[in-house]
Amino acid sequence: MSEAPATPYLRVDIARLRANIEATAARAAAAGVALRPHAKTHKSPDIARLQLEAGAIGLTVATIGEAEVFVEHGVEDVFVAYPLWLSDDAARRLRDLAGRADLAIGVDSVAAAQHAGAALEGTGIAVLVEVDSGQHRSGAMPADAGVVAAAAAEAGLPVRGVFTFPGHGYSPELMVSAADDEAAALTTAVVAFREAGLEPDVVSGGSTPTLTHTHTGALTEIRPGVYLFGDAQQWELGAMAPGSIALTCRATVVSHAGGRLVLDSGSKVLGADRAPYATGGGRLLDHPDARVLQLSEHHAVVDLAGAALPPLGSQVDVVPNHVCAAVNLADTLWADDGTTPVSWPVAARGRNS
Amino acid sequence: MSEAPATPYLRVDIARLRANIEATAARAAAAGVALRPHAKTHKSPDIARLQLEAGAIGLTVATIGEAEVFVEHGVEDVFVAYPLWLSDDAARRLRDLAGRADLAIGVDSVAAAQHAGAALEGTGIAVLVEVDSGQHRSGAMPADAGVVAAAAAEAGLPVRGVFTFPGHGYSPELMVSAADDEAAALTTAVVAFREAGLEPDVVSGGSTPTLTHTHTGALTEIRPGVYLFGDAQQWELGAMAPGSIALTCRATVVSHAGGRLVLDSGSKVLGADRAPYATGGGRLLDHPDARVLQLSEHHAVVDLAGAALPPLGSQVDVVPNHVCAAVNLADTLWADDGTTPVSWPVAARGRNS
Repeated sequence: MSEAPATPYLRVDIARLRANIEATAARAAAAGVALRPHAKTHKSPDIARLQLEAGAIGLTVATIGEAEVFVEHGVEDVFVAYPLWLSDDAARRLRDLAGRADLAIGVDSVAAAQHAGAALEGTGIAVLVEVDSGQHRSGAMPADAGVVAAAAAEAGLPVRGVFTFPGHGYSPELMVSAADDEAAALTTAVVAFREAGLEPDVVSGGSTPTLTHTHTGALTEIRPGVYLFGDAQQWELGAMAPGSIALTCRATVVSHAGGRLVLDSGSKVLGADRAPYATGGGRLLDHPDARVLQLSEHHAVVDLAGAALPPLGSQVDVVPNHVCAAVNLADTLWADDGTTPVSWPVAARGRNS
Repeated sequence: MSEAPATPYLRVDIARLRANIEATAARAAAAGVALRPHAKTHKSPDIARLQLEAGAIGLTVATIGEAEVFVEHGVEDVFVAYPLWLSDDAARRLRDLAGRADLAIGVDSVAAAQHAGAALEGTGIAVLVEVDSGQHRSGAMPADAGVVAAAAAEAGLPVRGVFTFPGHGYSPELMVSAADDEAAALTTAVVAFREAGLEPDVVSGGSTPTLTHTHTGALTEIRPGVYLFGDAQQWELGAMAPGSIALTCRATVVSHAGGRLVLDSGSKVLGADRAPYATGGGRLLDHPDARVLQLSEHHAVVDLAGAALPPLGSQVDVVPNHVCAAVNLADTLWADDGTTPVSWPVAARGRNS
């Protein structure tokens, strides 16, 4: 590819990407915890390979479809960190994968454990019990983890351990305490396992905003996703510095209407995520004081905080609020090492089932 | 396709879709305005055909990539309602299309008109001048429309007329007054054209929330997009009744953790759009009092307002907040007439350039 892609497109700074991957791998190694990155962020076999080469023990995914893509591309150890309720077809797809990779899935209730057991017994597919550490999304109460684990074992499934996602740490106020909550929930769950006569081999947690706060003594594994790219959310949470952000949307200035800066990077390429703490619809990498005031499908209207308007037709780099959402809209990431951009397929895009 | 698709998937109720298409076509015909639906909403050649068969004069699109897809599928009249700033490659792509369809693009400044003229002179591609009617996104000031139009004519481009998008009408407070603003802006622009010695053949506006408020006497054409599906935004604005909503996301109940209803329809299938007036992350078609409290990538946590939790593994229909965003995440729409669902490709998905 010698010609630059048409804007808006997602550009990956390879040097920053590698630095982020290596820094988190080193952090995990130093803390003595395994790193199983969440591949929902990148959905890219090219990037998964970089993570595995840097020492990741396997991948985390959110759906069976993502698992299929990564197993197809040679990944041998995949955890579907989701409380799957298996339809007949979903169970068949998992059984088809079972001989090709080391697989595990999440369950968060006795009913789900029994249902999964009926579908997967004898396949070698393991389960981890999901517990709620404070996000109040899915996950059993930590004290109930042993009951769920015992039900899974009774249903004939290998029980690998327990996991949580401290998602309430996506907040400036809760970023530190969410890591405390995570450790407490997992510790309670381990006690509950032991009371049920089971020993969890894996105690898994982690997220990008809580990465530096994780109580690694309480965990055996972390599953951050966003750390390798960063985004405006991590920037605004103070979890990653703008100089580490490895993915941007390259956009063209299409209008100066009303003295405004209007870019062609709308929500159909950036995503529309806007957390309560977000200061706008995205950030400009080279204009830290600028804010995306209005984001519609194909327009980003930017307040440049008094800076001169870049000329019509010029290009700027926009940092999406939530990089997982932006990647999920793209078929291709353009990986740039300063020479010729290379296309990396977003192979698992759209694999929501 | 005899087997039901795996959840989460987007399902189109064909009877409702046809009723919506026909009702708006009839409304436009009765008002004496042309209907040029915005195809960004559906990105589907199958649905474009239904619109054209019902009397639409052509399509509106947002990008050259969308225009390419619809021309490829035989659509003969396409307006790119966007202030394009043409790169060399974009201009080449438009020139390639020029012989195959009646094409027009937007411009919103003298500079853009001159730039487009240099690239497109002699191709027959026409321009419409975009004016700002109160959304304050792109668009020239209405009084400047004549100057921009004159610059386009001077640059050798056929000037077809003027257009606006009253996007500030996506608000319970402004839905009616935005239609007033639209009419005022377009009327001012027509005067400005005449002062520049030009007569606009097309005076174009319209949006789904303002559809019943449009001053059709001031317009020759309307370009609504969402009207054919509806979504939670239109429902909550009062612009469409839930009984008209023709697209839903079919989701599976995956967890009852903490007494919550957790569905597998996350933001990666619904989109994360949440307007200031939205009451949640989406609505449930059959539970009007329910609200999606938390929407993450693969989970929707629903407050059922006291109703009994549907069983684990059962399916419910979720109405996305913004249907354009949901469709833009899907490769396929499952069109259902009550017999066997048929797949309609979202052929222009991802065509953001």
